[in-house]
Amino acid sequence: MDINNYLHEKRDLVDAFFKKYYSRSHIPAVLQEAMLYSLFAGGKRVRPILALASYETCGGNPLDIVPYASSLELIHTYSLIHDDLPAMDNDDLRRGKPTNHRVYGEAIAILAGDALLTDAFAILADPSFSSGITPSNLLFALREVAFASGLDGMVAGQVQDILSEKKEPDTDTLFFIHTRKTGALLRASVRMGPILFGSNQEVLDALSTYGEHVGLAFQVIDDILDIEGSTEELGKSIGSDEKIKKMTYPRLYGIQKSKDIAEHLIADAHEALSIFGSEADTLREIADYILMRRS
Amino acid sequence: MDINNYLHEKRDLVDAFFKKYYSRSHIPAVLQEAMLYSLFAGGKRVRPILALASYETCGGNPLDIVPYASSLELIHTYSLIHDDLPAMDNDDLRRGKPTNHRVYGEAIAILAGDALLTDAFAILADPSFSSGITPSNLLFALREVAFASGLDGMVAGQVQDILSEKKEPDTDTLFFIHTRKTGALLRASVRMGPILFGSNQEVLDALSTYGEHVGLAFQVIDDILDIEGSTEELGKSIGSDEKIKKMTYPRLYGIQKSKDIAEHLIADAHEALSIFGSEADTLREIADYILMRRS
Repeated sequence: MDINNYLHEKRDLVDAFFKKYYSRSHIPAVLQEAMLYSLFAGGKRVRPILALASYETCGGNPLDIVPYASSLELIHTYSLIHDDLPAMDNDDLRRGKPTNHRVYGEAIAILAGDALLTDAFAILADPSFSSGITPSNLLFALREVAFASGLDGMVAGQVQDILSEKKEPDTDTLFFIHTRKTGALLRASVRMGPILFGSNQEVLDALSTYGEHVGLAFQVIDDILDIEGSTEELGKSIGSDEKIKKMTYPRLYGIQKSKDIAEHLIADAHEALSIFGSEADTLREIADYILMRRS
Repeated sequence: MDINNYLHEKRDLVDAFFKKYYSRSHIPAVLQEAMLYSLFAGGKRVRPILALASYETCGGNPLDIVPYASSLELIHTYSLIHDDLPAMDNDDLRRGKPTNHRVYGEAIAILAGDALLTDAFAILADPSFSSGITPSNLLFALREVAFASGLDGMVAGQVQDILSEKKEPDTDTLFFIHTRKTGALLRASVRMGPILFGSNQEVLDALSTYGEHVGLAFQVIDDILDIEGSTEELGKSIGSDEKIKKMTYPRLYGIQKSKDIAEHLIADAHEALSIFGSEADTLREIADYILMRRS
């Protein structure tokens, strides 16, 4: 299997679902337009793909859970729109395009984010998207996604991130921010597979550990790319973390040590998959892809 | 039954649930503090009370669904925080206290709203809060709340409200805004009762109609109170709609005709309850309370 083909193919499934889900016109038009602007701004669909691959590893057919996996991208997209706002990171550029509020204004950007978050839960609460998933498992998955996104997850990470700007980085705070702000939803994405499939505790635990390590590695590499990447590759301004003195791994450990940490995390992610045979090969390749990515 | 006692008693149940639910300290502390600041700013808990009364009308014990009913107040509170933001209505005062962003700043206010919205769904997805509700009915209720809150509900209403500022009011746009921005969640609150109880379609339809009329009446009366109420009674600046030329019923119809419309809507709400006997008396009294309220 070529991992790039796999990623491409799964991304197309997610995009096709969104096109269908949002094919009906909603009023007022500008709201849906603002939502779709950010949703189709070139995201890699990493979270949905992790959920699909994880479901496949458990023995399921990924085609059966595309809507549920896609809901993760709605939450990711809402978080980017709100993070970019003037009151937060005040970013003008995201994935090579003007940020949502630069195009639609702050009010619509905030509300587009709110609606994307809400739609994620509307989709996760709809059993008609799949015949094979029990209502109980669907509730379990939805609860996981909510916990990963809210007061103990992504929002907490974003608040701590803001509070920590311009402060000297320390290990505990940095770990808190990265595991909440990015790690929690990535972990929940991986856990969605075994939860929807109804896997046993051993499988759920192994994939949770994989998700934790991959999730943290993802953000450490993001920090590195913010320094080493090029604007063309990243589609956003380079050095933006440094500009507002974000708490990052390179700021605390330097570039080389940060790279070592990311490599160790990916090695630990591989280790967590040791209970699986070749059925986890895709997850292994995704871990390596996350380590090697340039954007 | 004294309706004021009933409202008081049910409000205490909701408040007690929130105190328990948020009794654990979350990090960073300021996020939870900002959430609780608005959650305990003196809300009347109209939406949870409608859900509890509706569940009782269907034959259920309201004590069995307090967490699910309370989740509606989390969504209402999030919407108030975001509506008050400088980019939206730019309000300084809400229920007699400085608005969330005036106390915590815009970034924290936006994120506190996000976390409240997310928690609503986390609670609705948790079957451990009640033994008698089936997972399917819980998913149904959650989906209803999500639809009422998002792209086809509350958020759409708020976007249209913003787009319509300073424009001449017309019947269709006004109806659109009021039924989406306020009506949709109030209707969903009433529908939560029969949905969680598993009532038949006739009961669900009757209560939906009741909820629609009560929901629209609620906002028409809000418009009137914004002109006729006093700052002490309302806890917010009077005439704030007029100041930013909001599209309201009094602006289109004048005060007296708006009052007539509200009275008709409440009469229609009563009519919708005609399939019920005395078991719907509480809902009848709540409809009258909504018509007569001064804040």
